[in-house]
Amino acid sequence: MSKTFVLAPDSFKESMTANEACQAMRLGIARIFPDANIISVPMADGGEGTVDAILAACAGEKVKCEVMGPLAEQCVEAYFALLDQGQTAVVEMALANGIQLLDVSRRNPLYTSSYGTGQLISAALDQGVKRIIIGLGGSVTNDAGIGMAQALGARFYDIKGRELNLGAECLLQLDRIDITGLDPRLAQTDIVIASDVTNPLLGPNGASYIYGPQKGATAAQVPFLDQSLAHVAAIVQSQLGIDVQDIAGSGAAGGLGYGLMVFASAKMSSGVETMLDLVQLKQYLPQADYVFTGEGAIDQQTLQGKTPFGVMRIAQQFNVPVIACAGRVGEGIDALYTAGFSAIFSIVPECCTVEQACLHGAENLERCCENIARIMRMAES
Amino acid sequence: MSKTFVLAPDSFKESMTANEACQAMRLGIARIFPDANIISVPMADGGEGTVDAILAACAGEKVKCEVMGPLAEQCVEAYFALLDQGQTAVVEMALANGIQLLDVSRRNPLYTSSYGTGQLISAALDQGVKRIIIGLGGSVTNDAGIGMAQALGARFYDIKGRELNLGAECLLQLDRIDITGLDPRLAQTDIVIASDVTNPLLGPNGASYIYGPQKGATAAQVPFLDQSLAHVAAIVQSQLGIDVQDIAGSGAAGGLGYGLMVFASAKMSSGVETMLDLVQLKQYLPQADYVFTGEGAIDQQTLQGKTPFGVMRIAQQFNVPVIACAGRVGEGIDALYTAGFSAIFSIVPECCTVEQACLHGAENLERCCENIARIMRMAES
Repeated sequence: MSKTFVLAPDSFKESMTANEACQAMRLGIARIFPDANIISVPMADGGEGTVDAILAACAGEKVKCEVMGPLAEQCVEAYFALLDQGQTAVVEMALANGIQLLDVSRRNPLYTSSYGTGQLISAALDQGVKRIIIGLGGSVTNDAGIGMAQALGARFYDIKGRELNLGAECLLQLDRIDITGLDPRLAQTDIVIASDVTNPLLGPNGASYIYGPQKGATAAQVPFLDQSLAHVAAIVQSQLGIDVQDIAGSGAAGGLGYGLMVFASAKMSSGVETMLDLVQLKQYLPQADYVFTGEGAIDQQTLQGKTPFGVMRIAQQFNVPVIACAGRVGEGIDALYTAGFSAIFSIVPECCTVEQACLHGAENLERCCENIARIMRMAES
Repeated sequence: MSKTFVLAPDSFKESMTANEACQAMRLGIARIFPDANIISVPMADGGEGTVDAILAACAGEKVKCEVMGPLAEQCVEAYFALLDQGQTAVVEMALANGIQLLDVSRRNPLYTSSYGTGQLISAALDQGVKRIIIGLGGSVTNDAGIGMAQALGARFYDIKGRELNLGAECLLQLDRIDITGLDPRLAQTDIVIASDVTNPLLGPNGASYIYGPQKGATAAQVPFLDQSLAHVAAIVQSQLGIDVQDIAGSGAAGGLGYGLMVFASAKMSSGVETMLDLVQLKQYLPQADYVFTGEGAIDQQTLQGKTPFGVMRIAQQFNVPVIACAGRVGEGIDALYTAGFSAIFSIVPECCTVEQACLHGAENLERCCENIARIMRMAES
């Protein structure tokens, strides 16, 4: 009787997209079980690759639009996914304002803004959607989502009544917020943040201190950035009466999480859970014999809500065993077995550099899955 | 029904002995199949670790004796294995004259000799054995086995009638061989060379050119060493009427293969096959469900008679599937699947240096075997 395999990996960062990982897994398994029913459900967690994974896993439409990049002079060809007969859009902040769009030397959160993400949201609203899911991973901004709000019609003035420039540099000069021009469609649309970041907006565990440096903030800029966001939060609280800076996730994407809650009444949701819902992994599980998942690295952090863990938890409900593959299998694997993973394999065939491993990721994953399938066939017979 | 696993790995060089590899495999498998019948048959191929593997796999006695090391001033505590109620001895040249006994800076085949190996053979003869199996891997000598023959009573003189010093430096001065003093027990004993080296004694594919450099020979010394061995072979041929320098394996262990054929009427045999016979792997296979084997590296070279290949070929006769584990899975694996391996796993959990991988070899192998067992359990159920 032919077996059914469900493939639900995340991307293997710097090596394979989730879709490419599915293809590699499929090749390896099909070599041993040519008659198997193999279902690819590429996964993501709201971060980079989310829209591509959604488009590969679901029947959906890719809608392109030109938006502002992280810097005001950048024009980026971005896109979002349109699902559910046009009722749901999936927007990925990184496609407009992601860190991959700026060379290391040009990353400076004083000047980068989330304006392009606002334009993407606006374009999604133009499609008449009822729900927008926004993935927040991979941002290169630290502007509390003010740029996003500007793109959607909010106005931010300094004490002299001049509109603020884009980027975090001017946020301390914020004196007055005018939301009368805010796109009215936002109020009629469910805005859902898909993110597994739980940092608050401010303080030592906040957006600026934790994520600022990787976006190019110098040690001297970090406290300035934190003060700037605190100033924004104080003005928002006094003028709009909204106090969400302590909500877990408000510090995601340089405070875009905060901005979306303030200006778009967005709700936080788990990136992985939201993705699992969107791609409807559940529907494939009643008839599945095995689920394969994976990610660039698997270790005890995986239990903190990473994609393979989310996949495993759902598969568990259907008593389907889950095999995980990773480029790096780190510490604490016993806890993952205890949690319910059936097996966890490294795909690395020999000692090598990370660059070499990434370069050969697809063939290594394919080979690993072939070997696993070989053991399955052997044990079944 | 509880399963029977047979574990027959070679050593993982610089990381684990074959016996340690068995232990790691056993731990990993037993964690998933606590009731399994697990039989450890540590393997070797005649090279380093052969005697230890034999002693771990068979009921045998370890006989210690002090012998000369690679350099005349070295005294080495060596040992051999006594099997079959004292009828068979297994001698490992590397335990007396192995490369591991000399720092890189002291390796110089002009001065190293196989004398200690002759002493080991003599000690084995003292036990009244009927058969001596001699593993030739890992030597640091290039003396055509003249040192070995000296230890066993042969005499080698220069043109002035002076006995030659030990080492290859004086071999060109050899003028006369006197074998009247050669230990007479050699003639009544089966001497079997266990080696998978097929090089001849002389020439560009011979002992000096192929293996000399790794024993410390400089580029200038290599032709001198080759000429020296050629001179020995010419004298042997003219005075003893023995012409074996072209036999495959005469170039093993710096010509010790040649010396053993000339002075001990030794027969060449495949290292792996000889080991497989000695440890009687066959007897465990009729009831085996799975065989696990492994080695530091597995690649297309494995098909040239390496231990995992020998193990697989025997298991194949009993229709038992063979799973191989290696620290490095190299090129050409498809040919190994075609030959009959069921699956071939790398034990490396992540990108790292060879040193790190060797350091954690046992835990990596244990984890790999646990994962394989997990897949087996899953597929069986």
